[in-house]
Amino acid sequence: MTAGDGNEFPMKKPGMRIALLVEYDGTDFSGFQIQKSDRSVQSVLEEAVFAVYGERRRIYGCSRTDAGVHARGHVSHVDVPFAIPEDRIPAALNTKLPEDVCVRSAKNVHSSFHARFDAAGKRYVYRIYNTGIRPCLERRIVTHVPGKLDTDRMREAAMLLVGTKDFTAFSARSEKDRTVSPIRTMRRVEVKKDLGSDTVEITVEGESFLYNMVRIMAGTLVYVGQGKIDVSDVAALFESRDRRKAGKTMPASGLTLEDVRYDPPIF
Amino acid sequence: MTAGDGNEFPMKKPGMRIALLVEYDGTDFSGFQIQKSDRSVQSVLEEAVFAVYGERRRIYGCSRTDAGVHARGHVSHVDVPFAIPEDRIPAALNTKLPEDVCVRSAKNVHSSFHARFDAAGKRYVYRIYNTGIRPCLERRIVTHVPGKLDTDRMREAAMLLVGTKDFTAFSARSEKDRTVSPIRTMRRVEVKKDLGSDTVEITVEGESFLYNMVRIMAGTLVYVGQGKIDVSDVAALFESRDRRKAGKTMPASGLTLEDVRYDPPIF
Repeated sequence: MTAGDGNEFPMKKPGMRIALLVEYDGTDFSGFQIQKSDRSVQSVLEEAVFAVYGERRRIYGCSRTDAGVHARGHVSHVDVPFAIPEDRIPAALNTKLPEDVCVRSAKNVHSSFHARFDAAGKRYVYRIYNTGIRPCLERRIVTHVPGKLDTDRMREAAMLLVGTKDFTAFSARSEKDRTVSPIRTMRRVEVKKDLGSDTVEITVEGESFLYNMVRIMAGTLVYVGQGKIDVSDVAALFESRDRRKAGKTMPASGLTLEDVRYDPPIF
Repeated sequence: MTAGDGNEFPMKKPGMRIALLVEYDGTDFSGFQIQKSDRSVQSVLEEAVFAVYGERRRIYGCSRTDAGVHARGHVSHVDVPFAIPEDRIPAALNTKLPEDVCVRSAKNVHSSFHARFDAAGKRYVYRIYNTGIRPCLERRIVTHVPGKLDTDRMREAAMLLVGTKDFTAFSARSEKDRTVSPIRTMRRVEVKKDLGSDTVEITVEGESFLYNMVRIMAGTLVYVGQGKIDVSDVAALFESRDRRKAGKTMPASGLTLEDVRYDPPIF
């Protein structure tokens, strides 16, 4: 049960619209969106807005992000009842926020701006700790894959994921769900491993994504890196439109929403 | 009250000596060394050794590290009652260790090897999150300094800290404590800030250190970066031998013991 567009906010209240650039450690959250009784990023942001502005206002996020997913540059908008100079807003809200969320920047935006509908693109990074030993200092923002991954093969496969394609096989939603088009455009899918580092970073940039799509793309690239499927199998996945032939959905812990692009840019 | 050489281990028990390369997130520890009733890295390591080897054995660490200080490459030695292939030791111990500690590597060493006395050098990094907004994803391993630091001046001052000198002014111990020589050799003190990053990293490499010395050196460089003291004041600190004229002791959270050097190398 979600309450994202719940009835407790019967009317959109007027006010100054502001956009918030938010960083959070998703480890101890049920996700971005308000869930009954669970701790969500949206709810702690709404509490902080209430504490600073004295009125309950709805926060509209650019994306919901699942439980455990992190963000370095999540964007929301909210209509606040009065103006605070935009450079003072982050500090005001941050004193009311728990240590695993912070507002990095705030901007006054036009009253027609919408964090979700106006988003022109998002960049995610999936971080894999790729060594026999489990992670420790980085444990909250990586996923552990012990066996050595063949990053050269992963890079080859990553190139096949770029472009405008039918990503049905990479979505957790049923193929029968026809309300959402499975055609998506990925501008960039890159696999990087720095010399001397144990972390493999998969960067995915696209206009919009299907449910669990980045985590399934990461899981498919991991399968390629482990030799469980071939690079050519990845090409065939688009034709098959069969979720069962793609890699598994990787754990949320490794995924971070790095930034959201707007045109013109806000932050 | 410390129990580092306590009476519960009346005799050094014979056995195979192994060295352990250990990573830990110091946030929730009272430090490396066993403290009555508090949670220490040493005690959780000794519990893991007991669980794997079936006997209580004393762990000897290369350094104590204070409460809240982290390590990516702390080294300990312990005499275990029987041999396990060294490449299997980390996994065996890691299943018995909490998520904020892990053994990255284990090596069989000569029975005369001592993690602390044989250490030929240590490298620490002090990480400062230098932006107006408090840290979030990195909050456990950095210290927040909001006002912009002048890293050029800090670099100038850092060069003055290199060499063999009387570091009395940089030690939390009283000048009257003559049991420990205040003369130390710093091989490298560097200030780095990557383009586009908000983190200033101070790297300090030396043979050995006085109590709180790295944190006071970091605090002194921060004072220089804030313009509270001049670069020339740093030179005068060595002459003055006056702790009160140096910078404050920076919080433990920003400090990480990155690695320990042995000659010949072990790991």
